[in-house]
Amino acid sequence: MKTVIVYSGGLDSTVLLYHLLDEGHEVAALSIDYGQKHKIELQRAKAISQPLDLHHEVADLNGMTKLFGESSLINSQNSVPHGHYEEENMKSTIVPNRNMILLSLATAWASSIKADSVSYAAHSGDHAIYPDCREEFATALDQAIRLADWQEIYLNRPFVGLSKAEVVKRGAELYVPFQLTWSCYEGQDLHCGQCGTCIERREAFHLAGIEDPTSYKNTAPSLQTMIASKWRL
Amino acid sequence: MKTVIVYSGGLDSTVLLYHLLDEGHEVAALSIDYGQKHKIELQRAKAISQPLDLHHEVADLNGMTKLFGESSLINSQNSVPHGHYEEENMKSTIVPNRNMILLSLATAWASSIKADSVSYAAHSGDHAIYPDCREEFATALDQAIRLADWQEIYLNRPFVGLSKAEVVKRGAELYVPFQLTWSCYEGQDLHCGQCGTCIERREAFHLAGIEDPTSYKNTAPSLQTMIASKWRL
Repeated sequence: MKTVIVYSGGLDSTVLLYHLLDEGHEVAALSIDYGQKHKIELQRAKAISQPLDLHHEVADLNGMTKLFGESSLINSQNSVPHGHYEEENMKSTIVPNRNMILLSLATAWASSIKADSVSYAAHSGDHAIYPDCREEFATALDQAIRLADWQEIYLNRPFVGLSKAEVVKRGAELYVPFQLTWSCYEGQDLHCGQCGTCIERREAFHLAGIEDPTSYKNTAPSLQTMIASKWRL
Repeated sequence: MKTVIVYSGGLDSTVLLYHLLDEGHEVAALSIDYGQKHKIELQRAKAISQPLDLHHEVADLNGMTKLFGESSLINSQNSVPHGHYEEENMKSTIVPNRNMILLSLATAWASSIKADSVSYAAHSGDHAIYPDCREEFATALDQAIRLADWQEIYLNRPFVGLSKAEVVKRGAELYVPFQLTWSCYEGQDLHCGQCGTCIERREAFHLAGIEDPTSYKNTAPSLQTMIASKWRL
C-alpha cells in the first residue's frame, strides 16, 4: 500500500501521517506553499517528517495566488478574523477551491510514483463555512480521481467519521509530537489562541481530555466562556 | 454569463474562445505554464487574446513539475514521439492528472471573480490514450466543481459532441486566426508536422475541407499515407 498524503504540518494531517504509518502504508507527503501567511506550517511539516524518513515534497503555488482573490489567509490587506469557526466573518478565510487543487496535485504525484491512494485528514468536525469540506464534495471528487488515471487511485479519508477531539485521542495513542504541529492562521512565532483554527485546536484538546502542549499568545476569553456562549449555556 | 476558459493558445481552445464571445459570454482566459516544452503556446495565447480585450492570466506551475514524473511533454531527457495518437508510444505524452489540475485552478479563479462556469474545449475526438479526456471523468469532475463553492459553477463543454474537424469548421465560420494558434508538442519555431498533435491538426483541416494555413517543418510521410495506414486502406 502506497499513499500520497496531503500534509500541512497541522494537527489533523500529522495524526493522519502517523496513523498511515501505523497501518503499514508506504507514505509520500506533499505540502503546498499557496502563499499562506502561516508558512511556518511548512517548516513544521518538514521538521516532523524528517525523522520519519519519508519522501516529503513542497510544491510551490505562489505563481498563482492571483487566482485566489481576497482570502484573508493570503492577502496582506485582510486580517485573519478572531472568533469561533461558526461565525459569519470566518468566511474570509476561504481559499477558493483549495481542496480540489491540493488533491489534484497529490493525485498527479500519486500517478507518477504509482501510489494507490491519496490520503487527507478530513474529519466530521470540518466546517460548514468551507464548501469544499462537505462530504458530498469529497465523494464526487473521489469519483473523478478514480477516473483520472489508468491505474485507479482513490481518496482515502480514514478520519471522516471522527471529531477533531477523537483525532487528538488517536494522536495521543500514536505518540504524535503535538507540540511541533502548527494550526494558527496568523503565522507568528506563537499560536495566537484566538483565530478560528486556534480555538478549534484548544477545544479539541479540552474535549479529548488530553493536555494541550501548545504555547498560545493569548487565551482570553477563556475556552469555557466561548464554549458556553456558543451553546448558550 | 461570465466564464473562465482554460486557454492553451491551441486550435481547439482558440475556437472555443471565439465561440464563447460569439455566444455573448464575458470571458476570462487562463493559461497555465506547467513546464511544457512548447511554451510557445503561451505566447500565442497572449497574442490571440490581446486584441480581444480579455482578462488573460498565465498561472505558473513550474514549482511543481517534479510531481509530473517522466512525461515527454516536460522532461528534457525524453523525446516527444512522432506518429499518430493511436500508437502506444504516445502514452509518454501524458502529464498525470493535468486536466483536473487545470480545471481546479480555473474553478478557483471562477469563484474569485464570480463567474458561473469554467469552459474547456474537450471534443469527441479527444484521445483514448488520455484517461482524463474521458467523458465519464469530465462528468464526475463537473459534479465536484458544482459542490466546490457556495455559488454553483459548472463545467461548460460545448464541443463535446464535435469532432476536431467540426471544431475547425466552427472556427472557420468565426474567422479564427488559425495561423496564430499553436499545437506542436516540440515547441520549435515551426510546427514539426510529425508529432501526435501535429498529425491530428493536419488531419482535422483535411477532413474539414478547409485550407490549413500552418507552416510545418516536415510533412513526410504524407497525411494520405498515414490515414491509409491507420485505416488499413
